[in-house]
Amino acid sequence: MIAVSEVSPLRDLVGQARAQGKRIGFVPTMGALHEGHLSLVRLARREAAYVVVSVFVNPLQFSPSEDFTRYPRRAAADKTLLSREGVDLLYVPEPAGFYPADFSTAVDVGGVSEGGEGARRPGHFRGVATVVAKLFQQVRPDVAVFGRKDLQQVAVVRRLVRDLDFPVSLVIGETVREKDGLAMSSRNAYLSREERRRAADLSRTLFAARGRAAHGEKDAHKLEEDSRKQLEASGFALDYVEAVDAETMRRVETVAPGTALTAAARLGKTRLIDNVMLLDATGPRT
Amino acid sequence: MIAVSEVSPLRDLVGQARAQGKRIGFVPTMGALHEGHLSLVRLARREAAYVVVSVFVNPLQFSPSEDFTRYPRRAAADKTLLSREGVDLLYVPEPAGFYPADFSTAVDVGGVSEGGEGARRPGHFRGVATVVAKLFQQVRPDVAVFGRKDLQQVAVVRRLVRDLDFPVSLVIGETVREKDGLAMSSRNAYLSREERRRAADLSRTLFAARGRAAHGEKDAHKLEEDSRKQLEASGFALDYVEAVDAETMRRVETVAPGTALTAAARLGKTRLIDNVMLLDATGPRT
Repeated sequence: MIAVSEVSPLRDLVGQARAQGKRIGFVPTMGALHEGHLSLVRLARREAAYVVVSVFVNPLQFSPSEDFTRYPRRAAADKTLLSREGVDLLYVPEPAGFYPADFSTAVDVGGVSEGGEGARRPGHFRGVATVVAKLFQQVRPDVAVFGRKDLQQVAVVRRLVRDLDFPVSLVIGETVREKDGLAMSSRNAYLSREERRRAADLSRTLFAARGRAAHGEKDAHKLEEDSRKQLEASGFALDYVEAVDAETMRRVETVAPGTALTAAARLGKTRLIDNVMLLDATGPRT
Repeated sequence: MIAVSEVSPLRDLVGQARAQGKRIGFVPTMGALHEGHLSLVRLARREAAYVVVSVFVNPLQFSPSEDFTRYPRRAAADKTLLSREGVDLLYVPEPAGFYPADFSTAVDVGGVSEGGEGARRPGHFRGVATVVAKLFQQVRPDVAVFGRKDLQQVAVVRRLVRDLDFPVSLVIGETVREKDGLAMSSRNAYLSREERRRAADLSRTLFAARGRAAHGEKDAHKLEEDSRKQLEASGFALDYVEAVDAETMRRVETVAPGTALTAAARLGKTRLIDNVMLLDATGPRT
């Protein structure tokens, strides 16, 4: 595995791989890698002969009150993990070079980015769309892999790719969970032992709602309300529990194929998000 | 010359040219072509073995009160002109296919887009940046050519390309003028015979200011003020006359290398823009 921090060698190496007829796969990450990320790397490997992973904690997607400075950074461990996965190229840009002082371009994806996380984290998806647009220009992958844990991010990137005609195929990896069901996340490291024990109630609650939907409960409002009560009883401070269409991210009243139940909730200082499909989408959809 | 209206054959043809080792040159236009556009096509031809020209009157860059519907459209004449210039590929997207009904992505370039035209035409440069980002994804040119007549557009596109790392070289073509100095523009067709006669005073005024700058007048405010008076005396309704740095588009107080004098003024219903360099930039700059 070769590691680079500048665009110029990145492009040279990707260009060489492309000249050899290799498909380029790309997994953008913020590092502090866990099994969820590694599952995305394996998906990229299945789709592409040359796999690029970026590790970049993108300041644009954090608001001033958020955890940018304390977000976990584990450069050496990440490198070891990616090397073991047979990643070809690790791209770790320097923040100062990535965003020059007078950087002034923003990419906004309307609609899908407005509710859910977008409503609670103003500017977050602008930061996501901007960094993804820029990374896509730098790497020019044939296929890029994102995780369904960040459901709204998937919707935003999908819309970005469609609207601006990025010639990139998107592959979406399923959420990887701990044994007790907690969705893997770099932010789980913030949890105290006691919080960690209770954290699994988030996914338990969402899966319970999925079970009820499978048994015929189609009232989205009822599933949201009951999940809220359950999570508050478990000690979570709720940001939201919302049933949405996973493609448009619009709230739904009736559970239908493609409806997801999404939630954001805090345990102490740690904000967790998770989602499950209440009814799987029918028809082709990655 | 092959003409296409869809992205898929566009990409196939550009891909074939690229596979033959040809550099791809691109000139985005809104049609109603004149010698100014054709000079850009010739620049593209000098830089690239395969030249793509798009003709697309981009609705996003017009406000509801502007001239989108009456903007001149001359598809047949444009095609003849481009064919004579040896253009390889003409791309004329259908508006409905180019922007699907739920298109919701916007690209904003801050700073350079805020004064001048940006202040008088809210949303204009967002529309420009969005269509350029999308066309660049569709065509993926190695080199793209823009005209200096739209000075602020050049600054916006240059910043967009730098900020998002589009691997595109920009080439800027000088403004082509009629014999009496009027900058060529598709909108000149709106002018009555009497307005057309007076229109040349716009460039005369700007060139007079350039002459004074060359002879030592460095007070930008004085050059602006005197130009304003002269244009008003000639019967123009002024939007602005502003001395700016041509790269940052910031107003300047003192004329320096890279300072341009920019103006927007109306004759009857027709809005004309023009600019001249008061002092040419020193050092490398395209």
